[in-house]
Amino acid sequence: MTRLRMGMVGGGQGAFIGAVHRIALAMDGECELVAGCFSRDPANTRATAAALGLDPARAWPSFEAMLEGERRLPAGERIEAVSIVTPNHMHVAPAVAFLEAGFDVICDKPLASSLEDGERLAAVVKKTGRHFALTHNYSGYPMVREAREIIADGRIGRVRKVMVEYLQGWLSSDLENSGQKQAAWRTDPAQSGPVGALGDIGTHAFHLLEHVTGAQVESLHALLSTFVPGRRLDDDDMVLLKLGGGASGVLCSSQVCHGRENALTLRVFGTKGALAWSQEHPNDLQLTREDGAVTTLRTATGATSAASRSLARLPPGHPEGYLEGFANIYRAFARRIRGASPEESAFPTVDDGVRGLRFIDACLKSSASASWQSLR
Amino acid sequence: MTRLRMGMVGGGQGAFIGAVHRIALAMDGECELVAGCFSRDPANTRATAAALGLDPARAWPSFEAMLEGERRLPAGERIEAVSIVTPNHMHVAPAVAFLEAGFDVICDKPLASSLEDGERLAAVVKKTGRHFALTHNYSGYPMVREAREIIADGRIGRVRKVMVEYLQGWLSSDLENSGQKQAAWRTDPAQSGPVGALGDIGTHAFHLLEHVTGAQVESLHALLSTFVPGRRLDDDDMVLLKLGGGASGVLCSSQVCHGRENALTLRVFGTKGALAWSQEHPNDLQLTREDGAVTTLRTATGATSAASRSLARLPPGHPEGYLEGFANIYRAFARRIRGASPEESAFPTVDDGVRGLRFIDACLKSSASASWQSLR
Amino acid sequence: MTRLRMGMVGGGQGAFIGAVHRIALAMDGECELVAGCFSRDPANTRATAAALGLDPARAWPSFEAMLEGERRLPAGERIEAVSIVTPNHMHVAPAVAFLEAGFDVICDKPLASSLEDGERLAAVVKKTGRHFALTHNYSGYPMVREAREIIADGRIGRVRKVMVEYLQGWLSSDLENSGQKQAAWRTDPAQSGPVGALGDIGTHAFHLLEHVTGAQVESLHALLSTFVPGRRLDDDDMVLLKLGGGASGVLCSSQVCHGRENALTLRVFGTKGALAWSQEHPNDLQLTREDGAVTTLRTATGATSAASRSLARLPPGHPEGYLEGFANIYRAFARRIRGASPEESAFPTVDDGVRGLRFIDACLKSSASASWQSLR
Amino acid sequence: MTRLRMGMVGGGQGAFIGAVHRIALAMDGECELVAGCFSRDPANTRATAAALGLDPARAWPSFEAMLEGERRLPAGERIEAVSIVTPNHMHVAPAVAFLEAGFDVICDKPLASSLEDGERLAAVVKKTGRHFALTHNYSGYPMVREAREIIADGRIGRVRKVMVEYLQGWLSSDLENSGQKQAAWRTDPAQSGPVGALGDIGTHAFHLLEHVTGAQVESLHALLSTFVPGRRLDDDDMVLLKLGGGASGVLCSSQVCHGRENALTLRVFGTKGALAWSQEHPNDLQLTREDGAVTTLRTATGATSAASRSLARLPPGHPEGYLEGFANIYRAFARRIRGASPEESAFPTVDDGVRGLRFIDACLKSSASASWQSLR
Repeated sequence: MTRLRMGMVGGGQGAFIGAVHRIALAMDGECELVAGCFSRDPANTRATAAALGLDPARAWPSFEAMLEGERRLPAGERIEAVSIVTPNHMHVAPAVAFLEAGFDVICDKPLASSLEDGERLAAVVKKTGRHFALTHNYSGYPMVREAREIIADGRIGRVRKVMVEYLQGWLSSDLENSGQKQAAWRTDPAQSGPVGALGDIGTHAFHLLEHVTGAQVESLHALLSTFVPGRRLDDDDMVLLKLGGGASGVLCSSQVCHGRENALTLRVFGTKGALAWSQEHPNDLQLTREDGAVTTLRTATGATSAASRSLARLPPGHPEGYLEGFANIYRAFARRIRGASPEESAFPTVDDGVRGLRFIDACLKSSASASWQSLR
Repeated sequence: MTRLRMGMVGGGQGAFIGAVHRIALAMDGECELVAGCFSRDPANTRATAAALGLDPARAWPSFEAMLEGERRLPAGERIEAVSIVTPNHMHVAPAVAFLEAGFDVICDKPLASSLEDGERLAAVVKKTGRHFALTHNYSGYPMVREAREIIADGRIGRVRKVMVEYLQGWLSSDLENSGQKQAAWRTDPAQSGPVGALGDIGTHAFHLLEHVTGAQVESLHALLSTFVPGRRLDDDDMVLLKLGGGASGVLCSSQVCHGRENALTLRVFGTKGALAWSQEHPNDLQLTREDGAVTTLRTATGATSAASRSLARLPPGHPEGYLEGFANIYRAFARRIRGASPEESAFPTVDDGVRGLRFIDACLKSSASASWQSLR
Repeated sequence: MTRLRMGMVGGGQGAFIGAVHRIALAMDGECELVAGCFSRDPANTRATAAALGLDPARAWPSFEAMLEGERRLPAGERIEAVSIVTPNHMHVAPAVAFLEAGFDVICDKPLASSLEDGERLAAVVKKTGRHFALTHNYSGYPMVREAREIIADGRIGRVRKVMVEYLQGWLSSDLENSGQKQAAWRTDPAQSGPVGALGDIGTHAFHLLEHVTGAQVESLHALLSTFVPGRRLDDDDMVLLKLGGGASGVLCSSQVCHGRENALTLRVFGTKGALAWSQEHPNDLQLTREDGAVTTLRTATGATSAASRSLARLPPGHPEGYLEGFANIYRAFARRIRGASPEESAFPTVDDGVRGLRFIDACLKSSASASWQSLR
Repeated sequence: MTRLRMGMVGGGQGAFIGAVHRIALAMDGECELVAGCFSRDPANTRATAAALGLDPARAWPSFEAMLEGERRLPAGERIEAVSIVTPNHMHVAPAVAFLEAGFDVICDKPLASSLEDGERLAAVVKKTGRHFALTHNYSGYPMVREAREIIADGRIGRVRKVMVEYLQGWLSSDLENSGQKQAAWRTDPAQSGPVGALGDIGTHAFHLLEHVTGAQVESLHALLSTFVPGRRLDDDDMVLLKLGGGASGVLCSSQVCHGRENALTLRVFGTKGALAWSQEHPNDLQLTREDGAVTTLRTATGATSAASRSLARLPPGHPEGYLEGFANIYRAFARRIRGASPEESAFPTVDDGVRGLRFIDACLKSSASASWQSLR
């Protein structure tokens, strides 16, 4: 099997998530980065390409130039897919362009900075028939997959209650005014869209909830708050949820929870059992059995399913981390392009991305009107 | 110091909480149970008294009989205070009667089965000037006191966000139809009042939140649910909160969280740090310091305050449990009656009880109208 | 059932363990303290008695005086049993005297300050036929009982390896030179006998190991160390163990493990599973099942045995602590005297005490000679 | 900077550790695998090379052929270093050959299957002056580095006591007789050398202890056991240790601890504080401060040192796992070859390997003679 040749849009020097995507892309030797437009600043792009050992001729000054330039290369040399890791408001334009030009796309989340843009992108994916993956990377953890399998198998009965949180503390003060680049774009409506914490991490929590339970949120009541004076977007969100099938839940996302790092946790209670998982110790899945005792299932052990074991690279007890979970999305994307079935190569889709944007939209309306809103 | 002579109303054979109160009362040798009306069934009262080694003449057939009978005993022999451990709807009548007759009262929670009854009882406490303690026993844990001290000292800065939960799983099925007495009265509106889980455990969570933070809930939005078919009261509650000082929060109480036992947990995030405490491992208090590192403070260690150390009976590392926390309420009550200052002998009051009833009242209105409600 | 009338030797003001014994004795209302010789200092004894509300006439100036005085009281009034809570070297004399006078005895550990003394005491117990309990209190925890049941039932297969530790840090510096009474007698050979940490806490670890596994240590290799300059007894011990049935193990006891409180932990590995328990979180028992997954068994839940549930006073999730475990020894002792069977009222015996002294003796010889020693 | 061109000896299809080395090598884009002799079976080598997308001409039938063949390639094309991932007894021959031919070497542990072979290899490293790294990969974890820094800075005072364990359960039964390849070679004296568990995992524990504390083991008393009938090498080891500076310790390595996965844990107690770390949750480092409170330091947070932060690829709270720790060894090796200073590019050396073999040698002698042995 030849490596999938990829290009990247965004992720120049100073960015965080670009480097993560590159490690994830390289880890299994199934993809290879061969081209990029890493920044709107061509000097940054050239420097990034040089540091990565790329052919300088494929360090493109704009994504449009990359699209045109790569198209002119021979079929066995040009990129096959593109990874988009720009800030939120810059996802849709390159994604649409590459899809329409026949390239497959893997894109960071949230899908877009408005529901309308997201729906437009989804329509392009449908129309072109290209592969499109959204890096809701937490679904790549083996024990998240295990949780999904357990619920789908009915082992905790019917889901009644879901509690999901994504708590961070790094924006407890006005870091955006200190020149910190990550903080600056995330709190800037022009780059992030109409929400802050809710888009940045709340959508991860929302996706995790729907992905693991297989249920959909039908309506919600949100309270979006901004705690840090002068900040223009929400930095703390609490949302009550009603799900299909009669379940209910609560989702909290916050970037002002002092000391929390990436505390994404999910708890699901069913009629016969319960599950709990925490991203910071991702290889432990707490399963409450019907007798009430709690069993810790561990990545890659014999007590887990084949589906989750397929996402592990190591024997039990050698911890798999964030990068491995992220790499699982890239590996699935590459294998799908090379012909694997959806069952063998699951990844979050453009539809998941649209769900996330609907969630944001409903939260905004709910919080503004202090009323319950449908997600339909 | 002579032991405080006490009588008990409720707590006959088959009850759970009565036995807890009796151990708590006896533990430190500062109180002594000498009389009781343990049940509406005189045979149960006599049998309970015999098992406890009480004088059969002081096993009274009704609380009214106890009141009259004890009054006639010599001053050095008659009870000085009464402990009320009946189901919720039976708190107010004996409490009022004993208070008006000049006895001090310690009473289980919630204070009453309606806000009106609770306010009436509070007025009687005020009018009579007697001591009245409400057994929101979780405030008796040393590390709950420690948390309160830390916040009052400003060590985590100004409180921004509070997350409190009390999750149980024992009512995940319709246990009340199996003849289980504890389940039966808790799910019966005639005995519990208009709420189930919210009154039984939600009020504990609410008290813990206000007690530890020193802040008051100003308004709330509640979703009360009943998951078990045929049940007549809520068994799951989720409440968004706005607190004085601009903080916000979320409170969840549920009795259908499969496998959860008495999972009362509190997390408080401030501008400079954070706290987390869990009742099931009550001797650990997680303190997030200003640098983001989490330190575990442990009961009775030198790293804790004199106030919390005064609630511990053992050196660090020998776990103090639920009964010791409960006994701290009794000990404070006895010492207050014997002349200790409020600082030396803190316990939850009738005002805390009224707050809890206001909370219930606002939740009922909010959930019925899907609107935010003020707590005044 | 009438309460067991008890006297106490030792435990005057300033002592720690005496107060623990008194709470344990009182907790269930099955015993009652009615007499005592709390100190060699009669003033201390009188003050202690007064604080406890005892009849001043039964605050005896010596244990001999108590023995004689109580004997002269009417049968329904005099003490039935005596609790001995003096420093180690003062256990045997009062124990022998009371046993020979026909009283039952409950005694703190270690049994004696020499193997010879301990064997002499055991012979007196056997000769008199009186009840004798040794407060290896950790065996009173419900989940220690559960562990013993699980192993006895063969649920983890044949035991292969045992790891037991009792780590403290409070003697990391020369606290004994600061006037701290607890530190002073524990590090004084005249009061503690020939060992320090090994007798004080190592014997608890040793008893826990043999009690839970049902196996006996056959030989050992010990390294006793003294880390704090000037200290006259060991403050750190490490012991390799060979057990009956081919198992092996390691025991560590130390009082110089900075920051450790009462970190008594036991791990047992068998051919089909494993167990782990830690005293500081005593309501959790980790059971590794045959498939390798770890299940947390919790005190009083339906997943536990009737034997362990009989030691709990509360429903699951309300933590039972050290005092409740200790009280279980007193309750069993009282019930045995009142006629309960050994199965219904298990407690550590004088034979367990002799085992502990043999263990000390073998460790001393081994460490001195750098050789393996038999325990017979 | 151009990528370091590497060859691999061992790691063909069916091996575990070879794949780990390849991911570690690729992760940061600083090394590139371009050649290999993956197996004594040329067909396996060819298949492995094909799966990896290597040039078939550089899939060599023997390490000798690889050495000769690569030497003949142009300087800018031939390998610069070789990674040796064969079973233990096959480390020395290729290592010596490549070193003497002027290649740098990175080699799996233990260094050799005898102390003599190891010393011979060390002499070759010294003579040739080539770079040699040993993949005691656990030292690549950020929080292991943090622990080392903390001790070196004197923050826990002088080290008194060290407890280190590496517990696994996968060899609890005679898996080697089932055809499982990993089990077969590890329990075969011809391939593993004179020890089983001690060499496979005990040497990791030993290295971790000396690496983190900076102290050396001076003498030891070992008990090596074989629990599984028919097994020819130890599967369980317990070792008492005396360290330089007066510290003592205990080391346990076992492969028959049912249910344990890769439970490598280290605890260090000093005169002023203590540390605890566990490989299965590698981003948490427990630091006991002078006041006895335990603080959890987390990978990449501001509360950690620059040295440990340099080993992290992600912001705090996104877990770094085993592969990232392993990759840190490769990255340091590559950077050293490219000119980085030892401070900037620390990795375990051939001297560490010789220490491990001395440890094995002393344990064998001690266990056979039941006596303390010096490590020189």
